[in-house]
Amino acid sequence: MTFWTLAARAAAMNPSVIREILKVTEKPGIISLAGGLPSPQTFPVTDFAAACAQVLEHDGPGALQYAASEGYGPLREAVAAQLPWAVDPAQVLITTGSQQGLDLVAKVLLDAGSRVLVETPTYLGALQAFSPMQPRAVGVASDEEGPRVDDFVAQAGSGAERARCMYLLPNFQNPTGRTMGEARRAALSAKAAELGIPIIEDNPYGDLWFDQPPPAPLTARNPECCIYLGSFSKVLAPGLRLGYLVAPKVVYPKLLQAKQAADLHTPSFNQRVVAEVLKGGFLDRHVPTIRALYRRQRDAMLAALEREMAGLDVTWNRPAGGMFLWLRLPAGIDATRLLPHAVERNVAFVPGAAFYAGTGDARTLRLSFVTATPAQIDAGIAALAAAIRKQAVACLNMEP
Amino acid sequence: MTFWTLAARAAAMNPSVIREILKVTEKPGIISLAGGLPSPQTFPVTDFAAACAQVLEHDGPGALQYAASEGYGPLREAVAAQLPWAVDPAQVLITTGSQQGLDLVAKVLLDAGSRVLVETPTYLGALQAFSPMQPRAVGVASDEEGPRVDDFVAQAGSGAERARCMYLLPNFQNPTGRTMGEARRAALSAKAAELGIPIIEDNPYGDLWFDQPPPAPLTARNPECCIYLGSFSKVLAPGLRLGYLVAPKVVYPKLLQAKQAADLHTPSFNQRVVAEVLKGGFLDRHVPTIRALYRRQRDAMLAALEREMAGLDVTWNRPAGGMFLWLRLPAGIDATRLLPHAVERNVAFVPGAAFYAGTGDARTLRLSFVTATPAQIDAGIAALAAAIRKQAVACLNMEP
Repeated sequence: MTFWTLAARAAAMNPSVIREILKVTEKPGIISLAGGLPSPQTFPVTDFAAACAQVLEHDGPGALQYAASEGYGPLREAVAAQLPWAVDPAQVLITTGSQQGLDLVAKVLLDAGSRVLVETPTYLGALQAFSPMQPRAVGVASDEEGPRVDDFVAQAGSGAERARCMYLLPNFQNPTGRTMGEARRAALSAKAAELGIPIIEDNPYGDLWFDQPPPAPLTARNPECCIYLGSFSKVLAPGLRLGYLVAPKVVYPKLLQAKQAADLHTPSFNQRVVAEVLKGGFLDRHVPTIRALYRRQRDAMLAALEREMAGLDVTWNRPAGGMFLWLRLPAGIDATRLLPHAVERNVAFVPGAAFYAGTGDARTLRLSFVTATPAQIDAGIAALAAAIRKQAVACLNMEP
Repeated sequence: MTFWTLAARAAAMNPSVIREILKVTEKPGIISLAGGLPSPQTFPVTDFAAACAQVLEHDGPGALQYAASEGYGPLREAVAAQLPWAVDPAQVLITTGSQQGLDLVAKVLLDAGSRVLVETPTYLGALQAFSPMQPRAVGVASDEEGPRVDDFVAQAGSGAERARCMYLLPNFQNPTGRTMGEARRAALSAKAAELGIPIIEDNPYGDLWFDQPPPAPLTARNPECCIYLGSFSKVLAPGLRLGYLVAPKVVYPKLLQAKQAADLHTPSFNQRVVAEVLKGGFLDRHVPTIRALYRRQRDAMLAALEREMAGLDVTWNRPAGGMFLWLRLPAGIDATRLLPHAVERNVAFVPGAAFYAGTGDARTLRLSFVTATPAQIDAGIAALAAAIRKQAVACLNMEP
């Protein structure tokens, strides 16, 4: 590679572990509990078809033309109206998926070497989006509710070393499925405001609760100190790449400029189609069907785990919504080393180590309960248990 | 702004001059020769409607699901097949508009302080896309064909100061409308290879030729040393935000990682819809109708300029395709200062100074001949001439 001189940041641009695993899972017959793909059963295909026809018939030239970088007015209004705090549509920026929101936030807030706080573990895509700006991602010690307040304070830094922001995914987190309780939110919000650390709150899964809605967003408590990221990927469909961010007026213009430079604007057509689908309270009818489906599938996974992991030193949580469950393997079993053995038995998962800013807990792994059917979940968890059992025996045999 | 500490690059993120002007031109009754909006008459609305219905009926779940960051296979194949040199579809990366291609190239090739060569003047959106990586953009002296080879060599730099790349828009350039001839392409390609400077070739307008196709792309001469950017915005519709890049195998994986981090992938739905529209040689039938329309409108603008600018020391070029014409005002008249007077007379343009890496030629301005109708072009050019005449008189009166 002598002709091409690459930017220093390119050295860190390597294939994502998840992506490489997803390639393996394209092998026919494999049950993938790895990917974060919403169930295609939940995609409102006929509603999209009707909306496409409607938009092209009544607003074809507008839908196909260049448009403002901020996004389509009626969609920005719909987003503002559905959020549980007072949001001016002028603060809403439509993004090409909420992943793009992370790219824009990184560009506006992070210099090379800047300290950015993340959860332990955290969403891998956020680490990847931040990486081109070459910040220093620091994991805040976390428990079953997310980041601990004491470690947030300990890691906050001060002066030039003060963290530029803390990235949080408080509802049904990717990868752990955990949710932050009311008291933790209140305490973290207060500390962040006190220490001068903006919170970047990512909420793609918040609507996918099973028993009761999660507590109010951290942003709702202190909107001037937070950037909130939302998405239509999990409540409508990810293939349209439609997300949004809500930012205070002091940072919005910079995020907007970064958006314009990144891709001019999010596709006008997609924005109009989704605005059309949303009309008449569509999500109020549609989202409960997704919740019911995912809840059944979570229950299937919990039941299969109870049954299949009996006698093994395996622990897992009980997500109250979302798409993922977090599992910890017996001592001595490394999830990354377990993976090929699981794939041999036709089941795939994502090793947890991929989701840490620093060194990860090698015994952890992420399971998705939304893409596979209950029957596949049963078979997949049985295969996973068999692979663990085999490894556990191999471990024992290796002991002196 | 004490709570929010912004990245150093954010200081350079300011509203684009063009964008602010476009806001002014939303005033009712104004004839805008400013924007670069394709004529909505050219949007194949009914073909899109049929393709949307087809895709959602036969491949709804696929069109609405997450997808590979590289892009939709059949679309990558269609792109590779239409390019005039041997392109492996594996080298094609589908982007969210070709603007995103510029963002990805900047991330992979440019460090803070890196030298990047651009034309004089150059596409403003490229300067904006490069800016977050904080390079040093250096303008290469250019003539009516684009960058001069002697100044390319003079500005190339060497050692650590060697330019990371040269950004070029050789066909019907934005903003000037100029085209690089065969000999210049051959000479620049050879020099770039010799000096070890990759060429980033942006070609959104190449299909919009009026009399004869432009010479072969620079990339066709030396694909291992170039990244080529293309777009469906001008031959189909910009509102879908569909572009692509073609890169050698040594840099493709890094661009792909940058793409994944930026927005995961370009909307699956849009990619399938465009692949569907392209079937059966659609562009071969459709693009000639765009060429014919834009040619008529260019002719209308040239005729109006001949008529209205008579007796004024105004010069302009005769673009052989594309969307833009470049005009130079009489000595003493600054295009930015002329703009409000033109807007008073209900016509808008873009001052040329916005398009320079360094200090621009204040007498230049860009006119688009594609959005306005011939009648509007006539009225707009007449109004522009009146504004210039008024300014010229004011100038004379100010002389001692």
